[in-house]
Amino acid sequence: MEAVTVEQICAAAGIGPATFYRHFGTKDGVLFAYRPFFLEAIREAVARAPTGTTADQLEGALLGFADYLEVHAEELAMRDRIVTANPVLLSRTLLVQREWEAELAGALAAARDVPDTDPTVWWNAALGLVVIRAAFRRWRGGTTATLRQCVGESFAEAAVTIGRCTDPEHLHGGVPSHPA
Amino acid sequence: MEAVTVEQICAAAGIGPATFYRHFGTKDGVLFAYRPFFLEAIREAVARAPTGTTADQLEGALLGFADYLEVHAEELAMRDRIVTANPVLLSRTLLVQREWEAELAGALAAARDVPDTDPTVWWNAALGLVVIRAAFRRWRGGTTATLRQCVGESFAEAAVTIGRCTDPEHLHGGVPSHPA
Repeated sequence: MEAVTVEQICAAAGIGPATFYRHFGTKDGVLFAYRPFFLEAIREAVARAPTGTTADQLEGALLGFADYLEVHAEELAMRDRIVTANPVLLSRTLLVQREWEAELAGALAAARDVPDTDPTVWWNAALGLVVIRAAFRRWRGGTTATLRQCVGESFAEAAVTIGRCTDPEHLHGGVPSHPA
Repeated sequence: MEAVTVEQICAAAGIGPATFYRHFGTKDGVLFAYRPFFLEAIREAVARAPTGTTADQLEGALLGFADYLEVHAEELAMRDRIVTANPVLLSRTLLVQREWEAELAGALAAARDVPDTDPTVWWNAALGLVVIRAAFRRWRGGTTATLRQCVGESFAEAAVTIGRCTDPEHLHGGVPSHPA
């Protein structure tokens, strides 16, 4: 990141430096300018996800969000390379991931008509972010699969890794979104 | 944190400023000085955890780590209050959590005699950190339970939340540590 000047970024993007600074504020800002759009995409993905079990709803929301990320795949890959090469940007990336988690929790709580403090909502959001991280690892590993496919595979992997279903009610369906 | 001077910290701890700076380097350093000890505690907890299924091993390691954390419960509660009151410390805390995750992954890989890149090891470590975060939330919420009990309850909650066991092999036992 230090090796790249704003002038070079502007030249590559075909914009003037004034436009750049008006939009992004700082050189680092360009890497995090996507934040509000991604948070909106999370809210929309949850709103469109099927209800049913909480696990189905979470999976649907993550797949919907993956479709959004897919559209921005090229930018994400570039962003990924810059952050990997600049460890100082990692801590800010971790804060962004925590924001995604909070947004996912808030949207799930709204869709389920439960308070933000609901434990299942918290678990779904935290595990959802781990699934997204795993999907990115898989995708970055040079697979030909789409981000949507990577999210689907990571979701299944999570269920197998931690799922010790000692209660038959939790087989095949997860916990009902709206317990009777 | 800004409101507290090094002098006040030293007075409260009964040490001189020279000792403080020699040990901690900076005012923020005091909050993160525990890092190497906690990483060592994670390695030891994994080394002592029962083998068997990967889920059993992960649970055992997390419970062992909780026993270590319990000994430092008072410091952790104080640290927690300082970080909560100073959002600027959050990003550094997130980096520390990522370090714990990497240490847990490395220790699990060593105990299982698999490479660090093993997907199950990665999943166990990532989910392990979510379980620890959930246990802290539970503990901080004013329960009378010990950290060990909170970790046990959070582990069970994780399994119920995400566990959709469609394969009978994964019932009651998780994935074997050393597949035949």
